[in-house]
Amino acid sequence: MTATQKILELNAFDMDDTGCLDPATAALVARRKRTFGPTSMLFYERPLNLVRGEGVWLIDADGSRYLDAYNNVPSVGHCHPRVVEAVNRQMATLNTHSRYLTDIVYTYSERLLATYPAALSNIVYTCTGSEGVDLALRIARTATGGEGLIATANAYHGNTAAVTEVSPSSATTQARSPNVFLVAAPDTYRQNAAEAVARFNADVKAAIAAMQAHGINLAAFIADSILSSDGVYPAVPGYLKETADIVRAAGGLYIADEVQPGFGRTGEAMWGFLRHGLTPDLVVMGKPMGNGFPIGGVVVKPDLLEVFGSQNGYFNTFGGNPVAAAAGLAVLETIEAEYLQENARTTGAYLAERLAALSGRHEAIGDVRNAGLYVGVEIVKDQTSREPDEVATTAIVNGMRERNVLIGTAGKFGNVLKIRPPLCFNRDNADTLAAALSDALAAHSDRQRR
Amino acid sequence: MTATQKILELNAFDMDDTGCLDPATAALVARRKRTFGPTSMLFYERPLNLVRGEGVWLIDADGSRYLDAYNNVPSVGHCHPRVVEAVNRQMATLNTHSRYLTDIVYTYSERLLATYPAALSNIVYTCTGSEGVDLALRIARTATGGEGLIATANAYHGNTAAVTEVSPSSATTQARSPNVFLVAAPDTYRQNAAEAVARFNADVKAAIAAMQAHGINLAAFIADSILSSDGVYPAVPGYLKETADIVRAAGGLYIADEVQPGFGRTGEAMWGFLRHGLTPDLVVMGKPMGNGFPIGGVVVKPDLLEVFGSQNGYFNTFGGNPVAAAAGLAVLETIEAEYLQENARTTGAYLAERLAALSGRHEAIGDVRNAGLYVGVEIVKDQTSREPDEVATTAIVNGMRERNVLIGTAGKFGNVLKIRPPLCFNRDNADTLAAALSDALAAHSDRQRR
Repeated sequence: MTATQKILELNAFDMDDTGCLDPATAALVARRKRTFGPTSMLFYERPLNLVRGEGVWLIDADGSRYLDAYNNVPSVGHCHPRVVEAVNRQMATLNTHSRYLTDIVYTYSERLLATYPAALSNIVYTCTGSEGVDLALRIARTATGGEGLIATANAYHGNTAAVTEVSPSSATTQARSPNVFLVAAPDTYRQNAAEAVARFNADVKAAIAAMQAHGINLAAFIADSILSSDGVYPAVPGYLKETADIVRAAGGLYIADEVQPGFGRTGEAMWGFLRHGLTPDLVVMGKPMGNGFPIGGVVVKPDLLEVFGSQNGYFNTFGGNPVAAAAGLAVLETIEAEYLQENARTTGAYLAERLAALSGRHEAIGDVRNAGLYVGVEIVKDQTSREPDEVATTAIVNGMRERNVLIGTAGKFGNVLKIRPPLCFNRDNADTLAAALSDALAAHSDRQRR
Repeated sequence: MTATQKILELNAFDMDDTGCLDPATAALVARRKRTFGPTSMLFYERPLNLVRGEGVWLIDADGSRYLDAYNNVPSVGHCHPRVVEAVNRQMATLNTHSRYLTDIVYTYSERLLATYPAALSNIVYTCTGSEGVDLALRIARTATGGEGLIATANAYHGNTAAVTEVSPSSATTQARSPNVFLVAAPDTYRQNAAEAVARFNADVKAAIAAMQAHGINLAAFIADSILSSDGVYPAVPGYLKETADIVRAAGGLYIADEVQPGFGRTGEAMWGFLRHGLTPDLVVMGKPMGNGFPIGGVVVKPDLLEVFGSQNGYFNTFGGNPVAAAAGLAVLETIEAEYLQENARTTGAYLAERLAALSGRHEAIGDVRNAGLYVGVEIVKDQTSREPDEVATTAIVNGMRERNVLIGTAGKFGNVLKIRPPLCFNRDNADTLAAALSDALAAHSDRQRR
C-alpha cells in the first residue's frame, strides 16, 4: 500500500486545497503548514476549527456543534468537570516524578489494579499507549529471551520505532522486521464466524512454525481484542483464549493492547480481554485512561516485571506523576458514578440495532458489528458481492461531517466506519447519528446515480 | 557495570530496609512495593513522602520543607500559578488531538519556533523526550538511509527500545546494538580542556571510520550539549560545532537533545546548542517544556521532515493537544516575564562560585563545573589523585537530604553531584545549598576519620 492510498483511506484534508475554506480556516491551515510541515494530516475534506468541547459535543469557531462519535480519548465526555477539577487541584498542590512517595499514586494504582484479575498485580506507568507497548515488548523479550512477535495484519499499536514494527497499518516504506509475523483478522462478515476464528488460530500456529523455521524464538503475541484498526471485529468472544494457549505452549507471552477496548467501552467488561475469558501476561493501557491527560501504563505479572527490572533500569519522567493519577482516579470514579460501562452496553446495542436497521434501505451497509460503544459499519458496493467500497466510505465520513456528526474509518480496505463516541453517548445521540448516516448514504447514492 | 552497582550510584532506597522509616512512610513503601514491584526505585536511604510543592520548595507529610536543587521539570517553579491557571482554563475548554485545527497550538508553535534559528522551522509534538528522541532517530535514519548512530559513552536519552540503544547509562544487560558507536565525554577536569575536546572530536572521526569499516552508514550523532549524565561538562563551548561539521561531512545528521539544557537553563542561551554556535538538523525537547504537564517535541529542518512524512505516517494521540500548548505557552511567558534565563546565568554563576570556594576547606571537592543553573561538582578521594569517590558521593547526597536539600548524582563513576534546581532559585537558596553541602562534607569526613 502506498502512502497516498493510505492518506485517501484515512480521510485526510488535501493541504493544498484551501480554496473551499472560509478565510479564517484557510489562515489556520497556512499557519499549521508553516509550523507542522505539509505532511501532517488533518481530518476531512473541510477541516474542523474547534474552540470548545463538552460531553459528546465539539464546537467550532462559528458556534456549530458537532456530535462526537469518533473520539475515545475523552471517554467520560469532553471537559468532564470531575476530571478538570481533579487535575486542577493536583496541579496546584504537587506534580513530581515517581522517585518520591506520593500517596495518590498508590491510591490510584490500587483502585485500578482491583479491576484486573489477581495475577496481574503490578503496574508501570508511562505517558502514552505507545510507550506502554514499547515497554511491554521489552519486558516480553527480556523475560522470554525470544525476539519473535506476532501481530494482526492491519494492527496499530503505536508510534515508536519498535512499536511501528508491530503496526502494519502505519503507512511506511520501512521494510518489515524479520522478527515480526502477521496473521489476518478473522473476517466474520465474509466467512462463517466459527470458521473465521478457527482459521485465525491456525494462522497463529503457522506463524509460530514459520518463526521457528527461521530460528527465531517467540516472545509474544499482541492484539487489541476487538481488532479496531483491522476493521472492528468484536464478535465471537472466546477465541483469543485459545490463541493465548497456543502462544504459551510455544513459550511466548500474551500482550493485550487495551488502549482501545479498555475502560468499559465494550460494555460487557472493564477490559476487552475479559470478554474472552483469558488472563494476559501483559496489558497496555492508554488513550481514555486520563480522559485526555497524557497517561498510559503496563499491567504485568510480577515475576515478569522482576526479571525485567533486575536486568534493566526503567524510569519514565512524567509516568505515574500525581496529576496523572488524579486524572486517572477521576476517570475511574466517573465510569462508576455515571454507570458508563452499563451505558456503553445498552446504548451501544441500541445504536448497533438502529444502524443495522438501515441496511434494508441502504445497499451500502454490508455489516454492523459492535461491542458496546465500539461500532464498525462495513461499507460495500452491494450486499451480494460484499466488495469493500473505500471511496464511498470516505464520502460518507465527509457527508457525516457536513451533517455535524464525527466518525472515522478503519480496516485494511479503509471501508469500515469507525464509531467510538465518548461513553456518555445517549439514545438521542444514537438517533441523531443514525439519521445523519441514512441521509449521508442517500446523498451519496444520489450523487452516484447522477 | 552490573545493575547493583548502578543502583548504588543512582542513590536508591533499599526496598527491604524499612526498619529506619516512620510507620506512615513504611506503609507507603509497602503499598508501592505491592503495586510497582520491588525493582522500581525510590531516591535516598530514607525516601521522601511528599504532599506539596511551591517554587523551589517541596514539602513532606510532616510539614518539613526541602530546597529542591534537583528537579528540572518544574523549571519555572513547582505549581507555578501561571501554568496551573493556563492548564485549568484549557482543560475546561477543549482538549483534543491534532487532526483538527486549534488556534492555541499554532500560537504556541510560532512562539516556540521563534526562539530557534530560522532553518529549524518545523515541529512535531510528542508527549515525552523519549518519544521525541525515538522519532528524531527515525527521521534521521529515513532521511539519510543510514543506520549508524554515535552517542556519548554515558549518555541518557530516554526509555524506548530504540532510545535505550543510545542510552548507555541505562543499566541493562541487553547487548549493545552493532549500529551504535560510543565516544567518551571530554574530561575537562583530568585533561587540559582544549586537548579533551580535540580528543573528543578525534574519537568521533574514529567512530565514523569504524562504522564505515563495518559497512554501516552514519545516520546521526546525538548529544546533550552539556553532557548531563556523562558528568556535566558544559565547558569549552564551541567544540560541538566542529563535531557537527565532521558528522555532516560523513553524510550524517546532528541531533541536539535539549531535554536537559533547553529552555534557558544554561543562562547563556535559550538552547544549549546555541552556546556552541551550531545549528542542529534535529532538536529534541522534553522535561521542562510544560513545567510537568507531559509534552515533548522534535524541531526539525523542513526538508528532513518532508522526506520522513512522505514515507511514514506519524500520529501522536496526545502530542500537540491544546492543553499541552497552553502549558507550554505559559512556560515561555514565565521564562520571559520573570527573567529566568538571566537568573539562571547570574544565580548559576554565584552558586558555582560559592561551591568552588568550598574546595579550599573540603578535599573531596575536585571540580565545580556549570553553565547557568546546571552545576556538576566532582567528588574525589583527594584533589591530587582526582580519584572518583562514588561512595562519598552517595553519602553526601543523602547527607544533603537529611539537611533538607535535594540534589542527585551523575557521571560514569556516579561521583558527580548533579545540581539543577528550578530556574527561580535565588541567591539565598544558593547560600542555603552551599552551607548544607559544607556541613554534609564535614560530617562525611568526620565519619570517615572515626
